[in-house]
Amino acid sequence: MTASRPSAPTPPRPDSARRRGPVLERAILDAALDQLATVGWGGLTMEGVAAGARTGKAAVYRRWPSKEDLVADALRAGMPPLDEAPDSGGVRDDLYEVCRRVRDALWSAPGVALRSVLHECDAGTAERFHAVIVRGMIEPSTRVLREVIHRGVRRGEVRPEAVSDMVVDVIPAMMMYRTKVCGSEWTDAEIARMIDEVGMPLLRA
Amino acid sequence: MTASRPSAPTPPRPDSARRRGPVLERAILDAALDQLATVGWGGLTMEGVAAGARTGKAAVYRRWPSKEDLVADALRAGMPPLDEAPDSGGVRDDLYEVCRRVRDALWSAPGVALRSVLHECDAGTAERFHAVIVRGMIEPSTRVLREVIHRGVRRGEVRPEAVSDMVVDVIPAMMMYRTKVCGSEWTDAEIARMIDEVGMPLLRA
Repeated sequence: MTASRPSAPTPPRPDSARRRGPVLERAILDAALDQLATVGWGGLTMEGVAAGARTGKAAVYRRWPSKEDLVADALRAGMPPLDEAPDSGGVRDDLYEVCRRVRDALWSAPGVALRSVLHECDAGTAERFHAVIVRGMIEPSTRVLREVIHRGVRRGEVRPEAVSDMVVDVIPAMMMYRTKVCGSEWTDAEIARMIDEVGMPLLRA
Repeated sequence: MTASRPSAPTPPRPDSARRRGPVLERAILDAALDQLATVGWGGLTMEGVAAGARTGKAAVYRRWPSKEDLVADALRAGMPPLDEAPDSGGVRDDLYEVCRRVRDALWSAPGVALRSVLHECDAGTAERFHAVIVRGMIEPSTRVLREVIHRGVRRGEVRPEAVSDMVVDVIPAMMMYRTKVCGSEWTDAEIARMIDEVGMPLLRA
């Protein structure tokens, strides 16, 4: 399979060619995100996704037994990764960078789609997509924040007691709360204000 | 009307007697909360509420044109009030008391019903009930927190820059986040830990 040799710089095959493995999977996941953006969770069908990916319905069902499984995977795969900690040498700049990345993930196509799915789907399905948020956004950004704070402690910038689950939760909590309650879109200026008014006073040694 | 003279200590009339005004309204709102607790948002009907309040459907529709209006009013009226600031003389104890009241409101019958309605209803209706949370819980507790912090500044306990919307949002943000993401029920010990690890380090002069 071509796709198992990613180093080979073969051009993308025309749609009519037979795609297999990861290439076809990627096309299906992309088509699912396209469908979410255009017809929403309610309008998305396995047939529509198959058509969008120029493949057959069977190829979709072979990999994903349900619409929930397919959409959860599409959102997960499309989300910008949040698991690498910035390392600018200073805790303020690192926090700023983590928040910008979280904001960018929230407003990425899969991030927007995820929130609109949650808005539209029923309660049972919502639990499933809630888990995508927890595993794809909350857990990695919390790990990264913990690392940034830890490094600040080692440099003497941050008080040692600040490495606590409560303190680490403050930034994700603020981002969730002000997004939901105030409809904040977290401009760079608002992120900076949050770090200067809340983050730094809370952490400083 | 008896109900317009609340100082008169008349015993509650038997259900068969003709109730009017606030007394009947209260009975209908209580019946709506009962229905929410037993059959949920999906099962609640205007007929069921009328039966629960031992009145006619017309008496319900005369006051509330729809199920949404009735339930929103029932939740609002049943919610424990959060608009009075505690005044223990110290910011730590005041914050602790505000958080306990918010926690108690979250776990009151209307608080639990409100969250289960939000879980169950469609997106359009959810906006309506979201507003009940904002006006009935978030706005009053934010006002009270601002007052508590302000008083702390006047006593020299709290740094003056802490009277900022970002800082005031931290406690409500933590309560929302850890309730949603960690399933926290906010025991007294967890509230104390949040105040000692986050609230006080953030506020202290």
